[in-house]
Amino acid sequence: MTTMRAAFVQDGALTLRTDYPVPVPQGEEVLVRIRLAGVCATDLELLRGYKGGFRGVLGHEFVGEVVAAPSAHHWEGKRVVGEINVGCGRCSLCHRGLGKHCRQRTSLGIIGRDGVFADYTLLPVHNLHAVPEHVPDEVAVFAEPLAAAYELLEQANIGPGQRVTVLGDGRLGLICAFVLAQTGCDLTVIGRTPEKLALLAGTGAQTVLSSPDTLDRLADDPADIVVDATGARDGFFTALRLVRPLGALMLKSTFADRVHDFDLSRLVVDEITIIGSRCGPFAPALAALASGAIDPRPLIHAEYSLEHAAAAIARAGEKGVLKVLIRP
Amino acid sequence: MTTMRAAFVQDGALTLRTDYPVPVPQGEEVLVRIRLAGVCATDLELLRGYKGGFRGVLGHEFVGEVVAAPSAHHWEGKRVVGEINVGCGRCSLCHRGLGKHCRQRTSLGIIGRDGVFADYTLLPVHNLHAVPEHVPDEVAVFAEPLAAAYELLEQANIGPGQRVTVLGDGRLGLICAFVLAQTGCDLTVIGRTPEKLALLAGTGAQTVLSSPDTLDRLADDPADIVVDATGARDGFFTALRLVRPLGALMLKSTFADRVHDFDLSRLVVDEITIIGSRCGPFAPALAALASGAIDPRPLIHAEYSLEHAAAAIARAGEKGVLKVLIRP
Repeated sequence: MTTMRAAFVQDGALTLRTDYPVPVPQGEEVLVRIRLAGVCATDLELLRGYKGGFRGVLGHEFVGEVVAAPSAHHWEGKRVVGEINVGCGRCSLCHRGLGKHCRQRTSLGIIGRDGVFADYTLLPVHNLHAVPEHVPDEVAVFAEPLAAAYELLEQANIGPGQRVTVLGDGRLGLICAFVLAQTGCDLTVIGRTPEKLALLAGTGAQTVLSSPDTLDRLADDPADIVVDATGARDGFFTALRLVRPLGALMLKSTFADRVHDFDLSRLVVDEITIIGSRCGPFAPALAALASGAIDPRPLIHAEYSLEHAAAAIARAGEKGVLKVLIRP
Repeated sequence: MTTMRAAFVQDGALTLRTDYPVPVPQGEEVLVRIRLAGVCATDLELLRGYKGGFRGVLGHEFVGEVVAAPSAHHWEGKRVVGEINVGCGRCSLCHRGLGKHCRQRTSLGIIGRDGVFADYTLLPVHNLHAVPEHVPDEVAVFAEPLAAAYELLEQANIGPGQRVTVLGDGRLGLICAFVLAQTGCDLTVIGRTPEKLALLAGTGAQTVLSSPDTLDRLADDPADIVVDATGARDGFFTALRLVRPLGALMLKSTFADRVHDFDLSRLVVDEITIIGSRCGPFAPALAALASGAIDPRPLIHAEYSLEHAAAAIARAGEKGVLKVLIRP
């Protein structure tokens, strides 16, 4: 088989190609057959023109099986998840251990590298993580977004005694809340949808429905750390109101809009730290999924076949919809 | 004596009052006779309308002598410098140890509290730090701005092996450079004035004259930490170009302008941390001044008598002028 199905994006339009060439591993790359993929807000942003319009196969959250690993045969047959960034390996950032931020990097389904809404994809072997046998695909497919949430714990000391607020009860907000709840911090999640907030029952997180009064009250006794997972410009300014002086605002979401009328002196006077946060470590994410400490399956709202990738992505963009999966 | 001289600001205009009442200590306050005061960029910003226009006696950098301490007589006669923020002591921020950020705080010569461009000022006794006997007034008067620079070391781990860039060779930039040089980090200071950069000779800092080519070159191999001490909106965006992914941009200067067209997603994608930084710890500042590790006197460009406070402040606002002192 030399051709495959692939959800290809170009000029902001997604089409299902049925004659897309099966990619051929180069160097340390391996060929992975996609078992299950997840739709992320970044996919929606890419379709809206974020990053100047990605052209290629969309998708970067996946669990798959290695079907060819010319440089590392012992990976063949293994079920894997994968880190999405591939640095050039030669520039100063790569030499400084910052390969995931290499300026010449490719990024699975995001920058210059075909993604996972397809039958097959390629990744370098050192991007792979083996999935423990007892972890179902529906759980393992959350490894990438969960790793991104674990990045919060890499960037700030979060633990008991600290008051942490997550703003946003979408996919990302809930996943961040799952991770933060593991730390024993005093966690509050602010959302707009009772059904979504209800998914946090049993995590120890307090949940609050957003309203002007509620936000005023929370701003009066601000949190040590606020995670903005709203994916919206307004969310940033709301989050800024909710963080205490000398506290940290962690930005977990990207959005294409630019910020205007931003008073930077507020950051200086209140000594606020703003921390941009993106991809994170897979090891703690896989460990939490394997132990059952985090079970993300209640977030799954729908599953589509690859033929209906466009419908899957549209569904993921609907209000109130959490995780949508695509099965090749 | 019940009246004194005081440089009073109102509606953006500064006038020297000769019949201003000598303040009377309340509660834990002490009366301090000002020996020497320093003009800071914040004074200039306040005259320009920053903070909605301060009304009162201007000035917050000083060294003085305690002349009356009703609640703590053993302070009388002592030469002191002082921290400028006075929290209410009752609110949740004060209870959380964040009194310097109390929403009801007063701030010497900045918010709701008469400052130091006067014969006398008031401060609570616990805001005071005694000045070691051998430290001259011309050195001790730098304790407050130097403490603000030491705040950088409270907020980020800075030491050998890290590449740190200071953007700006004004008063604040040079003082930050003095402090950062103490850490053994790999320090570069970018400025516009060879004479100012020359003041860093012997600190170990590399100095670079700003030019489009130079900035391009530095942006190509970005620093771990960049300190923006330009006090200008453009400086912020330049500083952002000079910091590496997963690095930190520390904002040391306030300015009244707001930022527009700011792409927050850059912070997320590159995982940049922005750290607002304001007042800092006096203990290390006084220690560095007392040991001679930092001698800020080359920064003194002029000294004026209190009668000429308006001229002193105008002089401090002139291009190329570093520290201007006011002696009552």
